[in-house]
Amino acid sequence: MTNTQVTLVQIDNYGPWTVTPEPRREADLQTLQSRLYADVSQFVGNRGGYVFFTRFDNMIAVTNGLDLEDHRLLQESAGNRYPVTLSLGVATGTDPVQALSDATTRLQEAGSAQDEDRRECLEGRVIEDAHRTADDVQIAHFDVINATGNYTDELNAFDTFIEIEQGYAELMRHMRRAHDSLSFFVGGDNVIVVCPDLEQADYEEAITHVEEAVDVSLQVGVGRGENAHDAGFGAKHALETCRADGTRVELEFEQ
Amino acid sequence: MTNTQVTLVQIDNYGPWTVTPEPRREADLQTLQSRLYADVSQFVGNRGGYVFFTRFDNMIAVTNGLDLEDHRLLQESAGNRYPVTLSLGVATGTDPVQALSDATTRLQEAGSAQDEDRRECLEGRVIEDAHRTADDVQIAHFDVINATGNYTDELNAFDTFIEIEQGYAELMRHMRRAHDSLSFFVGGDNVIVVCPDLEQADYEEAITHVEEAVDVSLQVGVGRGENAHDAGFGAKHALETCRADGTRVELEFEQ
Amino acid sequence: MTNTQVTLVQIDNYGPWTVTPEPRREADLQTLQSRLYADVSQFVGNRGGYVFFTRFDNMIAVTNGLDLEDHRLLQESAGNRYPVTLSLGVATGTDPVQALSDATTRLQEAGSAQDEDRRECLEGRVIEDAHRTADDVQIAHFDVINATGNYTDELNAFDTFIEIEQGYAELMRHMRRAHDSLSFFVGGDNVIVVCPDLEQADYEEAITHVEEAVDVSLQVGVGRGENAHDAGFGAKHALETCRADGTRVELEFEQ
Amino acid sequence: MTNTQVTLVQIDNYGPWTVTPEPRREADLQTLQSRLYADVSQFVGNRGGYVFFTRFDNMIAVTNGLDLEDHRLLQESAGNRYPVTLSLGVATGTDPVQALSDATTRLQEAGSAQDEDRRECLEGRVIEDAHRTADDVQIAHFDVINATGNYTDELNAFDTFIEIEQGYAELMRHMRRAHDSLSFFVGGDNVIVVCPDLEQADYEEAITHVEEAVDVSLQVGVGRGENAHDAGFGAKHALETCRADGTRVELEFEQ
Repeated sequence: MTNTQVTLVQIDNYGPWTVTPEPRREADLQTLQSRLYADVSQFVGNRGGYVFFTRFDNMIAVTNGLDLEDHRLLQESAGNRYPVTLSLGVATGTDPVQALSDATTRLQEAGSAQDEDRRECLEGRVIEDAHRTADDVQIAHFDVINATGNYTDELNAFDTFIEIEQGYAELMRHMRRAHDSLSFFVGGDNVIVVCPDLEQADYEEAITHVEEAVDVSLQVGVGRGENAHDAGFGAKHALETCRADGTRVELEFEQ
Repeated sequence: MTNTQVTLVQIDNYGPWTVTPEPRREADLQTLQSRLYADVSQFVGNRGGYVFFTRFDNMIAVTNGLDLEDHRLLQESAGNRYPVTLSLGVATGTDPVQALSDATTRLQEAGSAQDEDRRECLEGRVIEDAHRTADDVQIAHFDVINATGNYTDELNAFDTFIEIEQGYAELMRHMRRAHDSLSFFVGGDNVIVVCPDLEQADYEEAITHVEEAVDVSLQVGVGRGENAHDAGFGAKHALETCRADGTRVELEFEQ
Repeated sequence: MTNTQVTLVQIDNYGPWTVTPEPRREADLQTLQSRLYADVSQFVGNRGGYVFFTRFDNMIAVTNGLDLEDHRLLQESAGNRYPVTLSLGVATGTDPVQALSDATTRLQEAGSAQDEDRRECLEGRVIEDAHRTADDVQIAHFDVINATGNYTDELNAFDTFIEIEQGYAELMRHMRRAHDSLSFFVGGDNVIVVCPDLEQADYEEAITHVEEAVDVSLQVGVGRGENAHDAGFGAKHALETCRADGTRVELEFEQ
Repeated sequence: MTNTQVTLVQIDNYGPWTVTPEPRREADLQTLQSRLYADVSQFVGNRGGYVFFTRFDNMIAVTNGLDLEDHRLLQESAGNRYPVTLSLGVATGTDPVQALSDATTRLQEAGSAQDEDRRECLEGRVIEDAHRTADDVQIAHFDVINATGNYTDELNAFDTFIEIEQGYAELMRHMRRAHDSLSFFVGGDNVIVVCPDLEQADYEEAITHVEEAVDVSLQVGVGRGENAHDAGFGAKHALETCRADGTRVELEFEQ
């Protein structure tokens, strides 16, 4: 059974900071956001986790394998190197949406995202080492079948983007409502989804749903592991099988 | 009348590179993509342009003010510092979608995005200095009304994200089809749209459309300028007026 | 007794890469070198170690607390994100020079730094957890007394730099020959030295030597710990005591 | 005749910031310093200039081709993305030391480097476009003859570093005193020197001096141009001639 540890990473008081004393150059905000995300990706990724850029001022991470001291260090290091600070809420749950919900509540109870007195909160609990198992995280890696042939080399770049974005928006909503899962666009034509214990039939159903709703054809590789990297790497390999064999759903583990 | 110069920035042969000889760590791909985008944002932004991360392997930029030599230098510098290379297609048009369409065609004619022999193309034309005017670029900066109060401090972080994503997906499709405009989510609850000569009524219509379609309430500031930075900065200031006065649409210029 | 674990980080075949097929823009090489160093600093620093930029194509690190799997991951991550690769040699010793010497030999035996077939070597041994103690690392943090008042606000910026550089060159040579220590300029007017078990008298002697040889006045704080961060942080605090009390040598531990 | 435009880039109030409210993690300071330098290198380098890391809190740049608006933009962008701010002093002169001296004075007159009220100064003058010539900048690129064979593959990495550092310290002092030039170690075994109008004999003399003083054998390529990049690129090509032909001094231009 999955036991996902989720961390919500929130920049403190970001909205006001971007316009005080005057609005800041947009290109600089984009650079700051992207590089801060890249640093969090390295920190979390080097410890076996995944972090998704999400809204940039709010980033969602799967942090099985990171303890509270790791979280505190991430916060301290960011505070030493950026003109903004981070608050972190951590929680665990048998389904990722529940874990994220609890992580969010932890921060909301500490104060508003734009409360100028709320800075560098660290709230929550992690899974203790003794309780971790090889089934804790399930990751599904979706991509659009032959995106390059069907879209990138055929349509203008924005119409390709629209197709992929509509596919993502439909998948994200469906996976959240029907399967308590969190879906994140990660570039190209790829979406990584953090799932509870789903089965082959659930993934087939999701793919059918998206195809019928918005006419975007997806394939998916699914993996399981003690942390996000292990589960995600299994999912990548399973996706290569889809690409090689022309199948729509491949699980890297036995159900 | 607007005369938008659009550049499509495409990483050469990226899909294959990410899985050769084996799939690469996802956290490293995210870091690479984000930092490459941040560098392009600095280069383009320092010259008065805007670049949007879009799909990361394909990035769309408004490059009024950058000439072909600037594009070539960006390409050379990225090639010196990253394990991948960039191809660039540049075009101009009275509407942004047309410009992007032509920029895309320039690259498609040079070869597939996954053609291993196509590397570092630079194709297209820029607006000559003598032909540039203060009306060339129109930028609209949308955000969700009181996102922090209505969403961030109330819902779990993914449900907030879903609301903003649905609003973005609807706005992007509508602005493309009804107004030949290119819309980009830029973090938080913000969407920046690159427009042709639109008027107050067009923006009011777009806001109404999104509210009715997905129940997300937007406000917008609009600016005009010789380049994206000037237009976008005017838009940011107009948006501050919306926030201060409670209005839904503010144009920083006289229609 | 100190037991320093030292890692030599060497970029593979860097000299030839910088001029193949043609010399590359110097500003891009500086950017690449600095950002690669910054990434190694984050990776090693987040695990309690210190890395010094040294010659940039060869970097020296104190890696007590990092095991071989950590080293392998650092290598893999860099290889995924840079156009160059890293070879790593690790060794331990009761004095830092001996440890570095062995780490260097490990790489030299695997092949030349410019051998185009030698890529991503990982050679050596680490200190096993059970054998680590709170005395393993001794760090001394030197700075120039009142550099801002005596130099920065008085001389032209290059003459200030010459003074600091002459002080560093003298200290580095003396600490290596007389005390088997490794000295690194870390910016401003600061030099961090990795030492074996030295005593108050050794530091007083070193300061006197530099003052007499090149007329540069130093003060120093010294710390000890299980890893470089712990030892170095103790040294920083001891240096603050020097600044506050006007003393020349402060040890953060009892001899 | 050379007409070097030099900019001194100084971080405001850095010393106090690094220890307030408590000393900050050394690895984070190293990362911050290196990435800030890398950004300045990209900004200046993309406009044809060179910047040298020097002491990191004080960086020296050759900025022929950058005007005051460029300097202001660099300052604004850094202030938007880092927890520190920059002050800039710009001056020009027929010899680089004089130019740097004037640039330093500009900042010193505005206030101390650790004056907490002095922030983001921009003082000085640039060379107007109409007065720029192809002889404005002379750059010499020195390296150690066969460093890899003689040092890197033979000695331990610190003893190699000591040899190169002693060579650099001697060259920097001699070039400053005898030839009004500014010398900067740029990694590996390379030193870039910013010179006034020197001749073949001056470079031969400098090489002999260093060989006799510290027994380090150098070769040098020299270039000239309208800006640092042009001059430096010519120097790199000339240095390749030294490497190919076994000569000690090569000028890429006719004296």
